[in-house]
Amino acid sequence: MAAAIALSRRGRSASAPNPNVGCLIVQPAPAEAGGKVIARGWTQAGGRPHAEAMALAAAGDAAHGATAYVTLEPCAHASPRGPCCTDALITAGVARVVIAAQDPDPRTDGKGIARLQEAGIEVVSSLLAAEARAAMAPWWTRATQGRPFVTLKLATSLDGCIARADGSSRWITGTRARAHGHLERASHQAILVGRGTFDADEPKLDVRLSGLEGRSPKKFLLTSGPAPDGWTAVASPEAIDAVDSVLVEGGAGAASAFLAADRVDRLLLYRAPILIGGGKPALGDIGLTDLADAHDRWRLADSRLLGSDRLDVYERAREG
Amino acid sequence: MAAAIALSRRGRSASAPNPNVGCLIVQPAPAEAGGKVIARGWTQAGGRPHAEAMALAAAGDAAHGATAYVTLEPCAHASPRGPCCTDALITAGVARVVIAAQDPDPRTDGKGIARLQEAGIEVVSSLLAAEARAAMAPWWTRATQGRPFVTLKLATSLDGCIARADGSSRWITGTRARAHGHLERASHQAILVGRGTFDADEPKLDVRLSGLEGRSPKKFLLTSGPAPDGWTAVASPEAIDAVDSVLVEGGAGAASAFLAADRVDRLLLYRAPILIGGGKPALGDIGLTDLADAHDRWRLADSRLLGSDRLDVYERAREG
Repeated sequence: MAAAIALSRRGRSASAPNPNVGCLIVQPAPAEAGGKVIARGWTQAGGRPHAEAMALAAAGDAAHGATAYVTLEPCAHASPRGPCCTDALITAGVARVVIAAQDPDPRTDGKGIARLQEAGIEVVSSLLAAEARAAMAPWWTRATQGRPFVTLKLATSLDGCIARADGSSRWITGTRARAHGHLERASHQAILVGRGTFDADEPKLDVRLSGLEGRSPKKFLLTSGPAPDGWTAVASPEAIDAVDSVLVEGGAGAASAFLAADRVDRLLLYRAPILIGGGKPALGDIGLTDLADAHDRWRLADSRLLGSDRLDVYERAREG
Repeated sequence: MAAAIALSRRGRSASAPNPNVGCLIVQPAPAEAGGKVIARGWTQAGGRPHAEAMALAAAGDAAHGATAYVTLEPCAHASPRGPCCTDALITAGVARVVIAAQDPDPRTDGKGIARLQEAGIEVVSSLLAAEARAAMAPWWTRATQGRPFVTLKLATSLDGCIARADGSSRWITGTRARAHGHLERASHQAILVGRGTFDADEPKLDVRLSGLEGRSPKKFLLTSGPAPDGWTAVASPEAIDAVDSVLVEGGAGAASAFLAADRVDRLLLYRAPILIGGGKPALGDIGLTDLADAHDRWRLADSRLLGSDRLDVYERAREG
């Protein structure tokens, strides 16, 4: 299942409006871990084919009697865009389906599992469910909470500054950290900056990584005014409905607005081993009135060195 | 030698005005790594006995024909406070002396090694010299640069704040990080705070760790005015001459003054997984006029999690 989850990440951001699912077909159907992977699939750009359809097409007749690992419960509702995956798995004659997360979409939500079982297929569910949900966090957040999954990126000095007092910020972090930032851009449907950053930099926000230029996300500007050419205006953190994942890149005003609205799900903190002193702080007021309320909101999910910079990734530990 | 360096750290801060040295006596004198440790020594509080004297006393006749590992070249100058260690090693009949760092004190500086060799003792030097120097950094900095070794401690939120805008800072870091801070206090001869911190908190700055209460350091106040009772007034970062190690604990004014004067050798950065937003920044102006000048000054020496907080230790990577 871990391998299926890794596959599912390939479709993150690109598979919208459908969930980015991963699927492995394994023969012979193993009771224990083992067996041989005979086909792989992941939800393709635009949402079709689904992961199961891609894997079953690759497996062909070899799917008969096999085990399918899928990161999300197979869909049980037919769509004008294609057959439902539950029926496809039954038709292919798989013997066993192992599922990570149950589909929160009310059109499926357990119906896929029930129909597989009615067809005599053994179903195992909830294997690595949390990991699978995390891999499809944008779609999951939209499906369960009706809002996009928001990542806030901050690139600071050791003393928490995002620029010198005069606004200069080139460069705080090094080339490896900046390249990682471009990789993060490629996995989001939209990037957002505030008015101050736009006016100061008119940032391009494109993905400057070889082979990923086509993954440059939409550009959102947090503003009450009109959108510049090529940009989408967003009046508030609550007003985003066109995308499932947003990377908030700058500056302190936009970051603070999203935190104050409790709309940040993930923090990307790039920190360079430098001291600035008296520089521009990463955040303005976020509505904190008691230090005790600041605790237990963030859980360290990843930490690594990128050259001489450190990246810490924190995820939301609780709602509200 | 690594074990001797670990021993040397026991005397750090307490051994002043003498260097905190570590010594191991090993039998039989091994040509390769190996042998049995028959005695240990480290410079005692107040500077006497020296590490070698303590180890030789413990070894007794068994020192004859043995190898002595010492983290600093044995002293070659007699003192009214005791015999010189070079003579003591010769008298004890050791066959071999392995030395980490050569003594920068002009009264020894190579003379110890020369005298041992003249007595027919095999001498190996410069083994783990950098590590040994780091373990006696306060004494080394005083001996070679005529100034104390300064550690700057900052305890911040992820966005680099040391307090909320109203000054509240209890608590940003958790109990394990604060206990580690007390351990750092115990390894310094003095703690310094600025006037603002003193007026706001009148901090006790004592070591609140069981068994280490007696290691509470002197209390320095960075001020142009008179010292309060129990405190020593320090007019500027350059004005400290009574101690070899200082821990600068707060607040932003004192930290910035030491950084602006280029008098900080080590950074202790405790960072809690919280966001404050619009709080008190860790630093004020430190005289940085170009971001490029901020780079390559600090090298990551240690990084660890203390509960949910992270401690990063940076050391000075270059002078000036």
